Amino acid sequence: MNSARLYAVGVGPGDPELLTLKAVRILRAADVIVAPTGQAEAASYALGIVAAHLDPNRQQVLERVFPMSRDEEELRPYWEATASEVAAHVRAGRTVAFVTIGDPLLYSTFLYLLRLLRERYPEIAVEIVPGITSVSAAAAAAGVPLATAAERVAVLPATYEAEKLRQTLLDFDCTVLLKVSRVFDQLYALLVELGLERRGVFIRRVGSSEEEVVTDLASLVGKKLDYLSLLIVRKG
Amino acid sequence: MNSARLYAVGVGPGDPELLTLKAVRILRAADVIVAPTGQAEAASYALGIVAAHLDPNRQQVLERVFPMSRDEEELRPYWEATASEVAAHVRAGRTVAFVTIGDPLLYSTFLYLLRLLRERYPEIAVEIVPGITSVSAAAAAAGVPLATAAERVAVLPATYEAEKLRQTLLDFDCTVLLKVSRVFDQLYALLVELGLERRGVFIRRVGSSEEEVVTDLASLVGKKLDYLSLLIVRKG
Repeated sequence: MNSARLYAVGVGPGDPELLTLKAVRILRAADVIVAPTGQAEAASYALGIVAAHLDPNRQQVLERVFPMSRDEEELRPYWEATASEVAAHVRAGRTVAFVTIGDPLLYSTFLYLLRLLRERYPEIAVEIVPGITSVSAAAAAAGVPLATAAERVAVLPATYEAEKLRQTLLDFDCTVLLKVSRVFDQLYALLVELGLERRGVFIRRVGSSEEEVVTDLASLVGKKLDYLSLLIVRKG
Repeated sequence: MNSARLYAVGVGPGDPELLTLKAVRILRAADVIVAPTGQAEAASYALGIVAAHLDPNRQQVLERVFPMSRDEEELRPYWEATASEVAAHVRAGRTVAFVTIGDPLLYSTFLYLLRLLRERYPEIAVEIVPGITSVSAAAAAAGVPLATAAERVAVLPATYEAEKLRQTLLDFDCTVLLKVSRVFDQLYALLVELGLERRGVFIRRVGSSEEEVVTDLASLVGKKLDYLSLLIVRKG
């Protein structure tokens, strides 16, 4: 049996102890590790989380640049190059581990690679190794329940259109908002309008040494906030 | 510094390899392990997942019965007894690990214990160790993205009132429905009505040896389904 394949390995939100045993086993056994990074000169955050388990003398460790961009057309050539490289390694009988922060299927850039691989290299076997999401880790850091038995949870970017954001906050028992840094002041105003400003907890850089939990949301208004931040709004 | 405390340890959905390194470290070091079980004669599922890391000669392993019930009044005496027992161990300087399937803050019975501890024993330190959710593990088993950059995800019990269920399925890019076994036939009819019956993937007992992924939802109608099942409905 040929075990060569691509593993998409969720490495959790930042704390290396939040790796799963399965992630560690696969990372140690892989022939090739591929790690995304935002800029050519920046170290991959995901690679830093798993570095202690790798052996650069035995394994190929490839950092591949994916620019920070929302423009899929701009990103596509980068993903195409990586898809082709991954496919070549797997065809040559190597196992490849692509490391991704959090979980590979929840707001991960891996999803673009997955789509390309399915379109162009459908013969390449892909196995997903789930990871601890920043949502679970942030809730744990803040001690806030996400949902008890009969409740509903929504997860969405805070940059979503205002009317849908409002409706979700009204409808759901718990709303988790990602990418809050750039829109925090408007978001805070919306929470005040809905009477929910004391129901939110802000968590920055969960799982890192800079992790911080803020319950006094008013103190954050007008500040420059960390990109890796989220807000959990829990009613009742 | 007194390190005695309660750790709520998420042990993931079933596969012992989906334990985190942190969960393993805490379980090995704990003086007392508390594991919930549904019936007096049934072994705890969570305890089975972690058993390989425990040493019953050195650690106290307590299985505590919590009846399967939605009636909080019926459950309360069981949780009160466990809260009082946990508090006594922590006050005596012991570290206690309460094991819970999935993640402690997402649809876990641990949330009842947490509420009681905060009400009655606020001096007892509680630390949450996040776990891989059945949502992440099921998406990984099925190879279905939960959300790309600008999308919204909802998680809720399939037993939710029909009108809200319909609205959520219409509004969200991805809807994850838990507890589908008892209401599957109605749910399938709703998906057909919304033209979404080919967008759903059913996953039973994710992470166990009996794991199964079913994309032909029609084949499940009229069948007796496993209690530990969920459905991911992804549009677009």
